Amino acid sequence: MLEEVKHAIQDDYPDDFSHCYGCGRLNKKGHQFRTGWDGEQTVTAYKPAPEHTAIPGFVYGGLLASLIDCHGTGSASLALHRKNGHDPGDGIEAPRFVTASLEIKFTKPTPQDVTLKAVGTIEEIHPKKFKVTTDVYAADEHCASGTVTAVVMPDSFGKQ
Amino acid sequence: MLEEVKHAIQDDYPDDFSHCYGCGRLNKKGHQFRTGWDGEQTVTAYKPAPEHTAIPGFVYGGLLASLIDCHGTGSASLALHRKNGHDPGDGIEAPRFVTASLEIKFTKPTPQDVTLKAVGTIEEIHPKKFKVTTDVYAADEHCASGTVTAVVMPDSFGKQ
Repeated sequence: MLEEVKHAIQDDYPDDFSHCYGCGRLNKKGHQFRTGWDGEQTVTAYKPAPEHTAIPGFVYGGLLASLIDCHGTGSASLALHRKNGHDPGDGIEAPRFVTASLEIKFTKPTPQDVTLKAVGTIEEIHPKKFKVTTDVYAADEHCASGTVTAVVMPDSFGKQ
Repeated sequence: MLEEVKHAIQDDYPDDFSHCYGCGRLNKKGHQFRTGWDGEQTVTAYKPAPEHTAIPGFVYGGLLASLIDCHGTGSASLALHRKNGHDPGDGIEAPRFVTASLEIKFTKPTPQDVTLKAVGTIEEIHPKKFKVTTDVYAADEHCASGTVTAVVMPDSFGKQ
């Protein structure tokens, strides 16, 4: 099972947009999720910390929500970046997305002490808007599924 | 604006179920969300830490998802506890819920350095299943809305 993403889209986010607690490579206290291609799908692998419990032995829902959220924006960025002729690691800054909506179904308690794998499928619904459907596995167990609608970050973001 | 919940349902969760990173009073590293009644509605107030950024100045979506999630299970617990004749602080253990599904719409970037307030409305859809509709405000700004379907934690939870 994939335990690490070599070329992550988050490595190519502009510095100013790399402070997200979920996926910012410059946020030292955050999860630093890394999202990359796996064929035509996308993948983020993450091992929760011991404190990320719901009840002892199981992962809390907020971590899964954060994983699905950032995996969604990262996947949308991967898709638009590829459409523009680029892949992570080629030195070109990647587009940054924000989440418009997030839906999650928790199908099974998620065991702790296992690397989680989010696997995403991307659909373009508008040149600046992508829908990412994600399944989260703990080893081979399917634990949650989610849908993110991600839109290109407006220029005004942060200036309101 | 309410900045603190005096009688929180999380104070009455059994110790074994009080380790949630979002709302467990015994999780020293977690958010320790506290959810209580405000008339017929429920409220959770929380001030994000400086590292909980999306981009600098704004709160990341995963924190909002975690807040809406735990506010939802806490609200469902408040409702069932009241239906059983109890309120937080009366010394009776409260029922613990888990999240079946979570839906969030992010309506506006959520400013940092402000206490967030989640306000919930509860609907019983089955004796063991509640739907909680939540709005999140930063000061008076509406930033997100969410729906949680929460179910009474099965006896088997954690024993699988």
